[in-house]
Amino acid sequence: MNPMFARRMSRFQESDLTPILRLAANPGIISFAGGLPAPELFPVEELKHISSRVLADQGKRALQYSSSEGHLPLREKIAARSNKNFRTNLKASNVAITTGSQQSLDILGKMVLDEGDCVLSESPTYLAALSAFNACLPEYREVETDDKGMVSADLEKALASEKRAKIVYVIPDFQNPTGKTWPLQRRKDFMEIVSKYDVLVIEDNPYGELRFEGEILPSLKSLDRRGQVVMLGTFSKIFCPGLRVGWICGEEDLLASFGNLKQAADLHTSTLSQYEIDAYLSEYDIEEHIKKLIALYRERRDLMLRSMERAFPEEVTFTRPAGGLFTWVTLPERVNARDLFLKALEKKVAFVPGGAFFPNGGHENTLRLNYSNMPPELIEEGIASLGEALREFL
Amino acid sequence: MNPMFARRMSRFQESDLTPILRLAANPGIISFAGGLPAPELFPVEELKHISSRVLADQGKRALQYSSSEGHLPLREKIAARSNKNFRTNLKASNVAITTGSQQSLDILGKMVLDEGDCVLSESPTYLAALSAFNACLPEYREVETDDKGMVSADLEKALASEKRAKIVYVIPDFQNPTGKTWPLQRRKDFMEIVSKYDVLVIEDNPYGELRFEGEILPSLKSLDRRGQVVMLGTFSKIFCPGLRVGWICGEEDLLASFGNLKQAADLHTSTLSQYEIDAYLSEYDIEEHIKKLIALYRERRDLMLRSMERAFPEEVTFTRPAGGLFTWVTLPERVNARDLFLKALEKKVAFVPGGAFFPNGGHENTLRLNYSNMPPELIEEGIASLGEALREFL
Repeated sequence: MNPMFARRMSRFQESDLTPILRLAANPGIISFAGGLPAPELFPVEELKHISSRVLADQGKRALQYSSSEGHLPLREKIAARSNKNFRTNLKASNVAITTGSQQSLDILGKMVLDEGDCVLSESPTYLAALSAFNACLPEYREVETDDKGMVSADLEKALASEKRAKIVYVIPDFQNPTGKTWPLQRRKDFMEIVSKYDVLVIEDNPYGELRFEGEILPSLKSLDRRGQVVMLGTFSKIFCPGLRVGWICGEEDLLASFGNLKQAADLHTSTLSQYEIDAYLSEYDIEEHIKKLIALYRERRDLMLRSMERAFPEEVTFTRPAGGLFTWVTLPERVNARDLFLKALEKKVAFVPGGAFFPNGGHENTLRLNYSNMPPELIEEGIASLGEALREFL
Repeated sequence: MNPMFARRMSRFQESDLTPILRLAANPGIISFAGGLPAPELFPVEELKHISSRVLADQGKRALQYSSSEGHLPLREKIAARSNKNFRTNLKASNVAITTGSQQSLDILGKMVLDEGDCVLSESPTYLAALSAFNACLPEYREVETDDKGMVSADLEKALASEKRAKIVYVIPDFQNPTGKTWPLQRRKDFMEIVSKYDVLVIEDNPYGELRFEGEILPSLKSLDRRGQVVMLGTFSKIFCPGLRVGWICGEEDLLASFGNLKQAADLHTSTLSQYEIDAYLSEYDIEEHIKKLIALYRERRDLMLRSMERAFPEEVTFTRPAGGLFTWVTLPERVNARDLFLKALEKKVAFVPGGAFFPNGGHENTLRLNYSNMPPELIEEGIASLGEALREFL
């Protein structure tokens, strides 16, 4: 390591996953590795229209510096949609705009984590949340996680024993990487337990609106009596990721401190992007757009699950997500998914080996598959090839 | 402070400057406080054209996730312009795109600063650089600064005595807040001194292309034999700030580590904004655009300096910047610019009191004036009012 570097850089060495994922991006590879939305449904024509309008009507303001907390009309609309969809009770002052949801993770880590503080997470959890928190050199305590989310008994135990627990990071809806969703009772139990501790709950909710079946469940934020939950959202999955616009919902005093850090991090999020999304929400029906996304992703999930049933050996299991972008595959314990990856790559198909999603390692017999990005024919072909690789490997 | 918060949050309390600057933003106030470019010259029509084109030709890619290091054609163009303007010798692989220059400061702080490490800076220096570094809890050593920049003897002394010096942060061209520019010999002396130490030199260069007279001088990066200098640039001042696109130039190994932190911070900078700026640079002549900016800002600088000569008492002095956005005013030592601020506000004119630009405080008899944002008639009126406030105050 460069002798000038800070100690935190020991956590930012190139991981052994990096060259693997670079291979997955090669042309000709059917990649289930990323978490990319389907570009076919990006609102390209709508954005062309909107962007001309915004520049014509408010060009000088849309291209100028703006406030760290974000464009007020957009924050109002986000609060209203969240209240409708996730039963929260937010005002615009409870919403701040971020440069993608990733930025919220970076800033929240800075806000509460001293070196050696403890982050509790599901097991497995979102890889890039770990990268964000790593800048603050925390420890991780994985909380036992079953098909319904964090296991309450182990959460109790973790909070009681980890005196330096500061953050509980969870994705209750269509989790990344497993696709699992917490049922209502588990959410209530969770909130009852965490409310006894001074911990910040980060409810990361990038996929919650992409539900293929059943009713949207109350968010943790809507069950939050102590003001200890922040909920993160993003336009990346319901609109497009290229604009890098997300948001954080929380109590005003928390957001004031968050805003001071946000200002130091990048002053503010693109004014033009915020004006454009605000105009889109005014002039178009995003709910109709989301229905199209849901229909497409449901079809692709169905196709991937059917293809896996056909192509995978019986000893391989996988989750059946009710929404979101991912399914999670468990191989027999003797198999290392990184080795399988190289075999699969020979057959021109890629995925993310699952071990990296566990903060404390292990579980190398798992992998994540994305079904939102590839068109149907490539899903079928890719899963068939992966099945072949699996059969040869086992 | 919230008991959940990390120790670094002691540096992110609302400063006593915040309410002051909020007052400066009130309508009806002639504000010389911000660092805003002139919106009259924002390339609104050009962006309308470009944005339709980019969305029509490459919409799906422009709205998708993209790489942390940034759009390759844009990085190539930035390298070429920098080589021409600042005599650097950069390839695209020496350039990474950031979400404004502010993000580079945030990430560089994380990259090298452990708690208690020392940042050397000019005295005074850019306020928001301090905010960015503050997340890492450093100490500051102000290096004595005269009309030509950092005083070499004091820089030598500081580097010899501060065993934990990690960063030397400087703005050699049209500095914020003073408007001062380092002559060539001072740059050479500086590089000779720092090259004896393992310190990262951050050459912040947001204004370098806005030179009103004289030749552009070689950048520190162009004099860098050891690869210890990173140079920061931005489209905020030569194009528009609302898109939040800046860049960092440096050695490839440094940029690799920088990229890992950038990815953890916000994944990547807006794909669409990068495509748009790249298309603008291909289809329009940004050098012609910059000439217009220079003509306008030179006129406003001249007008502000003439107005100050007329309106300010003799015991008040100010700098005569050869470029950039700011002039720096020194009042008699007995005067506190925060008190003057309130008096000026009664007369509907605002500025930034200068004390906050000194990492270790003091120097309350100084203030910063911006001349780029206000139209000529308001510059004249505002400076006349400020002169009245000064005369009443002294």
